Amino acid sequence: METKGDPPIQFIQDKKPNPIIEFYFELAQLKQLYRQGWLQRGVARQRCESVAEHSFSLTTLAMIVADHLFPELNTEKIMRMCLLHDIAEAYTGDFTPQHQITKTEKQHLEQQAMEQLLAKLARGAYYIELWQEYEEQQTPEAKFVKNMDRLDMILQASIYEYIYKKDLSEFMSAIEKINCPHIQKIFRDLCEIRESI
Amino acid sequence: METKGDPPIQFIQDKKPNPIIEFYFELAQLKQLYRQGWLQRGVARQRCESVAEHSFSLTTLAMIVADHLFPELNTEKIMRMCLLHDIAEAYTGDFTPQHQITKTEKQHLEQQAMEQLLAKLARGAYYIELWQEYEEQQTPEAKFVKNMDRLDMILQASIYEYIYKKDLSEFMSAIEKINCPHIQKIFRDLCEIRESI
Repeated sequence: METKGDPPIQFIQDKKPNPIIEFYFELAQLKQLYRQGWLQRGVARQRCESVAEHSFSLTTLAMIVADHLFPELNTEKIMRMCLLHDIAEAYTGDFTPQHQITKTEKQHLEQQAMEQLLAKLARGAYYIELWQEYEEQQTPEAKFVKNMDRLDMILQASIYEYIYKKDLSEFMSAIEKINCPHIQKIFRDLCEIRESI
Repeated sequence: METKGDPPIQFIQDKKPNPIIEFYFELAQLKQLYRQGWLQRGVARQRCESVAEHSFSLTTLAMIVADHLFPELNTEKIMRMCLLHDIAEAYTGDFTPQHQITKTEKQHLEQQAMEQLLAKLARGAYYIELWQEYEEQQTPEAKFVKNMDRLDMILQASIYEYIYKKDLSEFMSAIEKINCPHIQKIFRDLCEIRESI
Protein backbone atom coordinates (compact mmCIF):
# COMPACT_ATOMS: atom_id res chain seq x y z
CA MET A 1 0.00 0.00 0.00
CA GLU A 2 1.62 3.26 -1.09
CA THR A 3 1.67 6.17 1.34
CA LYS A 4 3.59 9.43 1.68
CA GLY A 5 5.12 8.26 4.97
CA ASP A 6 4.80 6.13 8.08
CA PRO A 7 1.72 6.61 10.29
CA PRO A 8 2.11 9.64 12.63
CA ILE A 9 0.55 7.63 15.48
CA GLN A 10 3.83 5.71 15.80
CA PHE A 11 5.44 8.85 17.29
CA ILE A 12 3.16 8.93 20.32
CA GLN A 13 1.62 5.50 20.77
CA ASP A 14 3.73 4.61 23.83
CA LYS A 15 2.92 7.91 25.60
CA LYS A 16 -0.69 7.26 26.68
CA PRO A 17 -1.94 10.38 24.88
CA ASN A 18 -5.25 12.17 25.46
CA PRO A 19 -7.80 10.20 23.34
CA ILE A 20 -8.60 13.22 21.16
CA ILE A 21 -4.89 13.75 20.37
CA GLU A 22 -4.42 10.02 19.77
CA PHE A 23 -7.38 10.01 17.35
CA TYR A 24 -6.02 13.07 15.50
CA PHE A 25 -2.61 11.42 15.02
CA GLU A 26 -4.31 8.26 13.73
CA LEU A 27 -6.61 10.23 11.41
CA ALA A 28 -3.63 12.16 10.00
CA GLN A 29 -2.53 8.99 8.19
CA LEU A 30 -5.42 9.60 5.76
CA LYS A 31 -3.54 12.69 4.53
CA GLN A 32 -0.65 10.40 3.63
CA LEU A 33 -2.64 7.53 2.12
CA TYR A 34 -3.02 7.72 -1.66
CA ARG A 35 -6.27 6.61 -3.28
CA GLN A 36 -4.60 3.52 -4.73
CA GLY A 37 -6.92 3.22 -7.75
CA TRP A 38 -5.52 6.45 -9.23
CA LEU A 39 -1.89 5.33 -8.78
CA GLN A 40 -2.79 2.03 -10.49
CA ARG A 41 -3.99 4.06 -13.53
CA GLY A 42 -0.81 6.10 -13.79
CA VAL A 43 -1.73 9.25 -11.86
CA ALA A 44 1.53 10.79 -10.60
CA ARG A 45 2.13 10.67 -6.83
CA GLN A 46 2.42 14.44 -6.81
CA ARG A 47 -1.12 14.82 -8.23
CA CYS A 48 -2.71 11.80 -6.56
CA GLU A 49 -5.67 12.41 -4.28
CA SER A 50 -5.33 11.29 -0.64
CA VAL A 51 -8.13 9.56 1.28
CA ALA A 52 -8.46 12.74 3.40
CA GLU A 53 -8.94 14.86 0.25
CA HIS A 54 -11.54 12.43 -1.07
CA SER A 55 -13.40 12.51 2.26
CA PHE A 56 -13.48 16.31 2.17
CA SER A 57 -14.87 16.55 -1.36
CA LEU A 58 -17.35 13.74 -0.67
CA THR A 59 -18.70 15.39 2.50
CA THR A 60 -19.04 18.79 0.83
CA LEU A 61 -20.62 17.32 -2.31
CA ALA A 62 -23.07 15.28 -0.20
CA MET A 63 -24.03 18.40 1.75
CA ILE A 64 -24.84 20.49 -1.33
CA VAL A 65 -26.64 17.67 -3.18
CA ALA A 66 -28.70 16.66 -0.12
CA ASP A 67 -29.63 20.30 0.64
CA HIS A 68 -30.71 20.86 -2.96
CA LEU A 69 -32.31 17.62 -4.08
CA PHE A 70 -33.02 15.44 -1.01
CA PRO A 71 -34.62 17.63 1.68
CA GLU A 72 -36.28 14.54 3.19
CA LEU A 73 -32.91 13.10 4.26
CA ASN A 74 -31.07 13.80 7.53
CA THR A 75 -28.15 15.94 6.34
CA GLU A 76 -26.39 15.97 9.69
CA LYS A 77 -26.29 12.16 9.71
CA ILE A 78 -25.10 12.19 6.09
CA MET A 79 -22.18 14.52 6.89
CA ARG A 80 -21.15 12.40 9.88
CA MET A 81 -21.32 9.22 7.78
CA CYS A 82 -19.21 10.81 5.03
CA LEU A 83 -16.51 11.93 7.48
CA LEU A 84 -16.37 8.44 9.01
CA HIS A 85 -16.93 6.24 5.94
CA ASP A 86 -13.24 5.64 5.08
CA ILE A 87 -11.41 6.31 8.36
CA ALA A 88 -10.72 2.59 8.92
CA GLU A 89 -8.22 3.01 6.06
CA ALA A 90 -5.91 4.81 8.50
CA TYR A 91 -5.10 1.24 9.62
CA THR A 92 -6.20 -1.03 6.77
CA GLY A 93 -5.01 1.04 3.81
CA ASP A 94 -7.13 1.59 0.68
CA PHE A 95 -7.95 -1.79 -0.83
CA THR A 96 -8.80 -1.96 -4.54
CA PRO A 97 -9.94 -4.98 -6.61
CA GLN A 98 -6.23 -5.53 -7.47
CA HIS A 99 -5.51 -6.37 -3.82
CA GLN A 100 -7.55 -9.60 -4.06
CA ILE A 101 -8.80 -9.53 -0.49
CA THR A 102 -12.12 -11.24 0.29
CA LYS A 103 -15.11 -9.14 1.33
CA THR A 104 -15.28 -10.96 4.70
CA GLU A 105 -11.59 -10.38 5.40
CA LYS A 106 -11.91 -6.69 4.48
CA GLN A 107 -14.94 -6.27 6.76
CA HIS A 108 -13.10 -7.96 9.62
CA LEU A 109 -10.04 -5.71 9.26
CA GLU A 110 -12.23 -2.61 9.01
CA GLN A 111 -14.26 -3.53 12.09
CA GLN A 112 -11.02 -3.95 14.08
CA ALA A 113 -9.70 -0.63 12.79
CA MET A 114 -12.92 1.22 13.64
CA GLU A 115 -12.78 -0.09 17.20
CA GLN A 116 -9.10 0.84 17.50
CA LEU A 117 -9.89 4.37 16.27
CA LEU A 118 -13.20 5.10 17.96
CA ALA A 119 -13.71 3.04 21.14
CA LYS A 120 -11.66 5.53 23.16
CA LEU A 121 -13.88 8.51 22.19
CA ALA A 122 -16.85 9.69 24.26
CA ARG A 123 -19.31 9.11 21.38
CA GLY A 124 -17.32 6.25 19.88
CA ALA A 125 -20.10 3.65 20.08
CA TYR A 126 -22.40 6.02 18.18
CA TYR A 127 -19.78 6.61 15.45
CA ILE A 128 -19.30 2.84 15.04
CA GLU A 129 -23.09 2.45 14.73
CA LEU A 130 -23.21 5.13 12.04
CA TRP A 131 -20.43 3.40 10.11
CA GLN A 132 -22.20 0.05 10.44
CA GLU A 133 -25.39 1.65 9.16
CA TYR A 134 -23.39 2.84 6.14
CA GLU A 135 -21.87 -0.61 5.59
CA GLU A 136 -25.24 -2.37 5.84
CA GLN A 137 -26.79 -0.12 3.16
CA GLN A 138 -30.35 -0.38 4.44
CA THR A 139 -31.29 3.22 5.29
CA PRO A 140 -31.89 6.13 2.87
CA GLU A 141 -28.93 8.06 4.31
CA ALA A 142 -26.55 5.08 3.95
CA LYS A 143 -27.64 4.55 0.34
CA PHE A 144 -27.30 8.26 -0.42
CA VAL A 145 -23.73 8.39 0.99
CA LYS A 146 -22.78 5.34 -1.12
CA ASN A 147 -24.18 7.05 -4.22
CA MET A 148 -22.30 10.24 -3.40
CA ASP A 149 -19.11 8.19 -2.94
CA ARG A 150 -19.60 6.86 -6.48
CA LEU A 151 -20.42 10.31 -7.88
CA ASP A 152 -17.36 11.80 -6.17
CA MET A 153 -15.17 9.11 -7.77
CA ILE A 154 -16.72 9.74 -11.20
CA LEU A 155 -16.17 13.50 -10.91
CA GLN A 156 -12.56 13.07 -9.73
CA ALA A 157 -11.93 10.57 -12.57
CA SER A 158 -13.22 13.14 -15.07
CA ILE A 159 -10.78 15.72 -13.67
CA TYR A 160 -7.89 13.25 -14.15
CA GLU A 161 -9.13 12.60 -17.69
CA TYR A 162 -8.67 16.30 -18.44
CA ILE A 163 -5.30 16.55 -16.66
CA TYR A 164 -3.82 13.44 -18.30
CA LYS A 165 -5.77 13.45 -21.62
CA LYS A 166 -6.54 9.86 -20.78
CA ASP A 167 -9.67 7.70 -20.95
CA LEU A 168 -10.85 6.66 -17.48
CA SER A 169 -14.32 5.58 -18.57
CA GLU A 170 -13.94 2.33 -16.62
CA PHE A 171 -14.77 4.42 -13.52
CA MET A 172 -17.92 5.80 -15.14
CA SER A 173 -19.63 2.40 -14.99
CA ALA A 174 -20.24 3.09 -11.27
CA ILE A 175 -23.28 5.07 -12.46
CA GLU A 176 -25.00 1.81 -13.38
CA LYS A 177 -25.30 1.04 -9.67
CA ILE A 178 -27.05 4.35 -8.97
CA ASN A 179 -30.80 3.99 -9.23
CA CYS A 180 -31.76 7.63 -8.73
CA PRO A 181 -32.97 10.03 -11.45
CA HIS A 182 -31.46 13.16 -9.80
CA ILE A 183 -27.96 11.67 -9.70
CA GLN A 184 -28.30 10.09 -13.14
CA LYS A 185 -29.13 13.58 -14.46
CA ILE A 186 -25.90 15.00 -12.96
CA PHE A 187 -24.01 12.11 -14.61
CA ARG A 188 -25.62 12.78 -18.03
CA ASP A 189 -24.66 16.45 -17.70
CA LEU A 190 -21.08 15.34 -16.96
CA CYS A 191 -21.07 13.02 -20.00
CA GLU A 192 -22.00 15.95 -22.24
CA ILE A 193 -18.93 17.89 -21.22
CA ARG A 194 -16.72 14.76 -21.12
CA GLU A 195 -17.55 14.04 -24.77
CA SER A 196 -15.90 17.27 -25.74
CA ILE A 197 -12.45 16.49 -24.22
CA MET B 1 1.04 30.80 -4.36
CA GLU B 2 2.29 27.25 -4.76
CA THR B 3 -0.10 24.58 -6.00
CA LYS B 4 0.20 21.08 -7.47
CA GLY B 5 -1.34 22.26 -10.75
CA ASP B 6 -3.66 24.66 -12.53
CA PRO B 7 -7.27 24.88 -11.34
CA PRO B 8 -9.43 22.04 -12.79
CA ILE B 9 -12.29 24.51 -13.41
CA GLN B 10 -10.32 25.88 -16.40
CA PHE B 11 -11.10 22.65 -18.30
CA ILE B 12 -14.86 23.20 -18.27
CA GLN B 13 -15.55 26.86 -17.62
CA ASP B 14 -16.60 27.63 -21.21
CA LYS B 15 -19.04 24.68 -21.31
CA LYS B 16 -21.87 26.01 -19.13
CA PRO B 17 -21.68 23.01 -16.79
CA ASN B 18 -24.36 21.86 -14.35
CA PRO B 19 -23.81 24.05 -11.23
CA ILE B 20 -23.04 21.02 -9.02
CA ILE B 21 -20.36 19.83 -11.47
CA GLU B 22 -18.98 23.36 -11.79
CA PHE B 23 -18.76 23.66 -8.00
CA TYR B 24 -17.01 20.27 -7.73
CA PHE B 25 -14.37 21.28 -10.29
CA GLU B 26 -13.80 24.57 -8.44
CA LEU B 27 -13.61 22.82 -5.05
CA ALA B 28 -11.08 20.30 -6.42
CA GLN B 29 -8.48 23.08 -6.49
CA LEU B 30 -8.30 22.77 -2.68
CA LYS B 31 -6.75 19.31 -3.19
CA GLN B 32 -3.98 21.01 -5.16
CA LEU B 33 -3.43 24.02 -2.90
CA TYR B 34 -0.67 23.58 -0.33
CA ARG B 35 -1.08 25.09 3.14
CA GLN B 36 1.56 27.72 2.41
CA GLY B 37 2.68 28.14 6.03
CA TRP B 38 4.13 24.62 6.05
CA LEU B 39 6.06 25.15 2.82
CA GLN B 40 7.46 28.38 4.26
CA ARG B 41 8.84 26.33 7.22
CA GLY B 42 10.56 23.79 5.01
CA VAL B 43 7.96 21.01 4.84
CA ALA B 44 8.59 19.05 1.62
CA ARG B 45 5.94 19.40 -1.12
CA GLN B 46 5.46 15.63 -1.03
CA ARG B 47 4.49 15.74 2.68
CA CYS B 48 2.74 19.11 2.69
CA GLU B 49 -0.91 19.20 3.73
CA SER B 50 -3.42 20.55 1.20
CA VAL B 51 -6.28 22.87 2.14
CA ALA B 52 -8.70 19.99 1.41
CA GLU B 53 -6.83 17.73 3.84
CA HIS B 54 -6.86 20.43 6.51
CA SER B 55 -10.61 20.95 6.01
CA PHE B 56 -11.22 17.22 6.45
CA SER B 57 -9.25 16.92 9.69
CA LEU B 58 -10.76 20.15 11.02
CA THR B 59 -14.36 19.01 10.35
CA THR B 60 -13.78 15.59 11.90
CA LEU B 61 -11.94 17.03 14.92
CA ALA B 62 -14.70 19.62 15.43
CA MET B 63 -17.35 16.89 15.29
CA ILE B 64 -15.71 14.71 17.96
CA VAL B 65 -14.80 17.62 20.25
CA ALA B 66 -18.26 19.21 19.99
CA ASP B 67 -20.01 15.87 20.58
CA HIS B 68 -17.86 15.19 23.64
CA LEU B 69 -17.36 18.54 25.31
CA PHE B 70 -19.84 21.05 23.87
CA PRO B 71 -23.29 19.40 23.73
CA GLU B 72 -24.94 22.84 23.91
CA LEU B 73 -23.60 23.79 20.45
CA ASN B 74 -25.27 23.07 17.09
CA THR B 75 -22.97 20.39 15.65
CA GLU B 76 -24.65 20.36 12.23
CA LYS B 77 -23.96 24.08 11.83
CA ILE B 78 -20.39 23.54 13.04
CA MET B 79 -19.72 20.83 10.44
CA ARG B 80 -21.16 22.99 7.64
CA MET B 81 -19.05 25.97 8.76
CA CYS B 82 -15.90 23.81 8.87
CA LEU B 83 -16.48 22.47 5.35
CA LEU B 84 -17.05 26.01 4.02
CA HIS B 85 -14.54 28.00 6.11
CA ASP B 86 -11.63 27.91 3.63
CA ILE B 87 -13.31 27.21 0.27
CA ALA B 88 -12.72 30.80 -0.93
CA GLU B 89 -9.06 29.73 -1.19
CA ALA B 90 -9.98 27.79 -4.34
CA TYR B 91 -9.80 31.25 -5.96
CA THR B 92 -7.78 33.43 -3.57
CA GLY B 93 -5.08 30.94 -2.57
CA ASP B 94 -3.91 30.49 1.04
CA PHE B 95 -2.61 33.84 2.31
CA THR B 96 -0.12 33.82 5.19
CA PRO B 97 1.37 36.80 7.08
CA GLN B 98 4.30 36.66 4.60
CA HIS B 99 1.94 37.67 1.76
CA GLN B 100 1.50 41.17 3.24
CA ILE B 101 -2.10 41.61 2.13
CA THR B 102 -4.35 43.90 4.19
CA LYS B 103 -7.27 42.42 6.12
CA THR B 104 -9.74 44.51 4.08
CA GLU B 105 -8.27 43.40 0.77
CA LYS B 106 -8.33 39.74 1.89
CA GLN B 107 -11.97 40.04 2.98
CA HIS B 108 -12.91 41.63 -0.35
CA LEU B 109 -11.23 38.88 -2.38
CA GLU B 110 -12.81 36.17 -0.22
CA GLN B 111 -16.29 37.67 -0.52
CA GLN B 112 -15.93 37.72 -4.32
CA ALA B 113 -14.69 34.12 -4.32
CA MET B 114 -17.55 32.91 -2.11
CA GLU B 115 -20.09 34.47 -4.47
CA GLN B 116 -18.36 32.96 -7.49
CA LEU B 117 -18.41 29.53 -5.84
CA LEU B 118 -21.80 29.50 -4.13
CA ALA B 119 -24.28 31.88 -5.80
CA LYS B 120 -25.12 29.25 -8.44
CA LEU B 121 -26.13 26.63 -5.84
CA ALA B 122 -29.70 26.13 -4.59
CA ARG B 123 -28.73 26.88 -0.96
CA GLY B 124 -25.89 29.23 -1.91
CA ALA B 125 -27.23 32.26 -0.02
CA TYR B 126 -27.44 30.15 3.15
CA TYR B 127 -23.86 28.93 2.74
CA ILE B 128 -22.62 32.50 2.28
CA GLU B 129 -24.51 33.50 5.45
CA LEU B 130 -22.86 30.65 7.39
CA TRP B 131 -19.43 31.73 6.16
CA GLN B 132 -20.17 35.35 7.10
CA GLU B 133 -21.26 34.18 10.55
CA TYR B 134 -17.88 32.44 10.85
CA GLU B 135 -15.99 35.52 9.67
CA GLU B 136 -17.85 37.83 12.07
CA GLN B 137 -16.98 35.65 15.10
CA GLN B 138 -20.02 36.62 17.14
CA THR B 139 -21.85 33.33 17.70
CA PRO B 140 -20.74 30.37 19.87
CA GLU B 141 -20.49 28.08 16.81
CA ALA B 142 -18.35 30.59 14.87
CA LYS B 143 -15.99 30.99 17.85
CA PHE B 144 -15.82 27.22 18.34
CA VAL B 145 -14.89 26.61 14.67
CA LYS B 146 -12.15 29.27 14.91
CA ASN B 147 -10.76 27.57 18.03
CA MET B 148 -10.85 24.17 16.31
CA ASP B 149 -9.04 25.72 13.31
CA ARG B 150 -6.28 26.80 15.71
CA LEU B 151 -6.21 23.42 17.49
CA ASP B 152 -6.05 21.58 14.15
CA MET B 153 -3.05 23.72 13.13
CA ILE B 154 -1.32 23.08 16.46
CA LEU B 155 -1.85 19.32 16.17
CA GLN B 156 -0.64 19.23 12.55
CA ALA B 157 2.40 21.34 13.53
CA SER B 158 3.23 18.84 16.27
CA ILE B 159 3.10 16.00 13.70
CA TYR B 160 5.55 17.90 11.47
CA GLU B 161 7.78 18.45 14.53
CA TYR B 162 8.02 14.67 14.91
CA ILE B 163 8.51 14.03 11.17
CA TYR B 164 11.19 16.69 10.71
CA LYS B 165 12.71 16.71 14.25
CA LYS B 166 12.21 20.45 14.06
CA ASP B 167 10.89 23.06 16.48
CA LEU B 168 7.61 24.60 15.28
CA SER B 169 6.66 26.13 18.61
CA GLU B 170 5.85 29.43 16.86
CA PHE B 171 2.54 27.77 15.85
CA MET B 172 1.78 26.82 19.44
CA SER B 173 1.25 30.46 20.43
CA ALA B 174 -2.19 30.19 18.77
CA ILE B 175 -3.34 28.65 22.07
CA GLU B 176 -3.06 32.07 23.71
CA LYS B 177 -6.07 33.19 21.67
CA ILE B 178 -8.19 30.29 22.94
CA ASN B 179 -10.10 31.25 26.06
CA CYS B 180 -11.66 27.87 26.81
CA PRO B 181 -10.58 25.48 29.60
CA HIS B 182 -11.55 22.30 27.68
CA ILE B 183 -9.36 23.18 24.71
CA GLN B 184 -6.54 24.50 26.90
CA LYS B 185 -6.54 21.09 28.64
CA ILE B 186 -6.10 19.29 25.28
CA PHE B 187 -3.23 21.68 24.52
CA ARG B 188 -1.54 21.01 27.89
CA ASP B 189 -1.85 17.26 27.24
CA LEU B 190 -0.18 17.80 23.86
CA CYS B 191 2.64 19.83 25.45
CA GLU B 192 3.39 16.94 27.77
CA ILE B 193 4.04 14.58 24.88
CA ARG B 194 5.76 17.30 22.81
CA GLU B 195 8.33 17.83 25.57
CA SER B 196 9.52 14.29 25.10
CA ILE B 197 10.40 14.64 21.37
